[in-house]
Amino acid sequence: MTQWQFDTETAVQELSAGRWRTHLYPAWNIGDKPNGGYAAATLIRAMTRLAGREDPVTVTTHYLRPGIADQDAEIHTELVRSGRRTVNTAASLHQDGKERLRCLAAFGDLSGAPDSGRAALSLPPVDLPRPEDCPSRSGKDQGIDLPITSRLELRMAPEYAEPGAAGRAEIAGWVRFLDGRPTDAAALPLFADAFPPAVFSLLGRVGWVPTLELTVQVRRRPAPGWIAARFHTQDLHNGLLVEDGELWDETGALVARSRQLAMLLEG
Amino acid sequence: MTQWQFDTETAVQELSAGRWRTHLYPAWNIGDKPNGGYAAATLIRAMTRLAGREDPVTVTTHYLRPGIADQDAEIHTELVRSGRRTVNTAASLHQDGKERLRCLAAFGDLSGAPDSGRAALSLPPVDLPRPEDCPSRSGKDQGIDLPITSRLELRMAPEYAEPGAAGRAEIAGWVRFLDGRPTDAAALPLFADAFPPAVFSLLGRVGWVPTLELTVQVRRRPAPGWIAARFHTQDLHNGLLVEDGELWDETGALVARSRQLAMLLEG
Repeated sequence: MTQWQFDTETAVQELSAGRWRTHLYPAWNIGDKPNGGYAAATLIRAMTRLAGREDPVTVTTHYLRPGIADQDAEIHTELVRSGRRTVNTAASLHQDGKERLRCLAAFGDLSGAPDSGRAALSLPPVDLPRPEDCPSRSGKDQGIDLPITSRLELRMAPEYAEPGAAGRAEIAGWVRFLDGRPTDAAALPLFADAFPPAVFSLLGRVGWVPTLELTVQVRRRPAPGWIAARFHTQDLHNGLLVEDGELWDETGALVARSRQLAMLLEG
Repeated sequence: MTQWQFDTETAVQELSAGRWRTHLYPAWNIGDKPNGGYAAATLIRAMTRLAGREDPVTVTTHYLRPGIADQDAEIHTELVRSGRRTVNTAASLHQDGKERLRCLAAFGDLSGAPDSGRAALSLPPVDLPRPEDCPSRSGKDQGIDLPITSRLELRMAPEYAEPGAAGRAEIAGWVRFLDGRPTDAAALPLFADAFPPAVFSLLGRVGWVPTLELTVQVRRRPAPGWIAARFHTQDLHNGLLVEDGELWDETGALVARSRQLAMLLEG
């Protein structure tokens, strides 16, 4: 059985009821800190085991403190409610005795028959050049190392490849695992936090944009292949911004939505 | 000192550290169940006291089971992290020995100087007729009693007053407290859950739309007066939908964003 990097590097081991150990691998860093979506993926992994359901239909993460790369972490989980259709869980990640992430997630089963019922609405996919016509996000960006590009292949739509060039707070491109791991519902919360902040397309690389809260709704299990993603900010003032995201699979089906509240620390 | 209904009917009493008592008043019902935004307001009230900060900058609520109207409830709170700029808290609401709501919230101070920094972006306000030219949401809707209209004054933009007539999944109107209580940051998560589901404007009143998860970001303290609100669904399939909302004060300033994942139970 293939050992995919994402699965190996988000593995969790149950120590006792509701207590788990994991390790934050530096290969998923942005600079010297673990990517927030990656750190949350370890929590989602533990909560998925606890819930006994495969699909995280909504996941909210509060980022309390940065994670510490290349170090073990302890995860605490709680089964909040186990229903017929939905299982609600909570989790937290701790390193050096301090809580760093807190998460609420509801799990369900998105394997159901294609659209049934009298109504369906969907956001049409973002119009992007094919991945081979989009430049890769490189492993270094204005002096900041991006180890995460050793794990995720990110192709930026050309108009967004240069910070500040697009003239609006939007970014779009393609993402997939570099080692060929198939994209599944569990990967989507990670992919929703893997692109540079949309606001950089408007302002240039103005500083650091730490996430305070990120919520991802997974809407479908994705078809095999690349994920197309678009992120945009319409709401920024006094150093706080809201960034919305939409993710589609290669068939054009909407597979996830995201929204985060983040700080814009200029300087 | 005026006793406003919202403050009296979301009052919380601390029983011991992290344990509070409240009461869910039937005046805030939709049918025979407490409105979700109202039930969450009691949690926000307790968390605000715990956090020692006035403004809920982001609040995520998972709705596990309906609340029970006209009955006491117990609230459990946890101080997750107390930072210089942000205080993170968690809370849950229990009745009849069962947990019914689980909440994560970050509090801050939105009283700061008007927009500073080099950048600001905002969503322009929805274009609505003046409140006096919009019909009130009545206390009964196709046989369902709406006691909440004894507490909130809801004025629907005329094109959305009749379910199914607008032909798109959008609804908009004005909201304020009926007793004249000023709108503040604490009221906005309630107002974000006070309108009929946007999907009714497309499909007619198709059934019940229970919220699984609702996240509200409060972006500014509102100016006195009415709140204009718009809600829209672009993403509905297999009985699950995402509804986005935006709220503005009477000066046209964006004061809150909302997004919820809900089920569409036709029947």
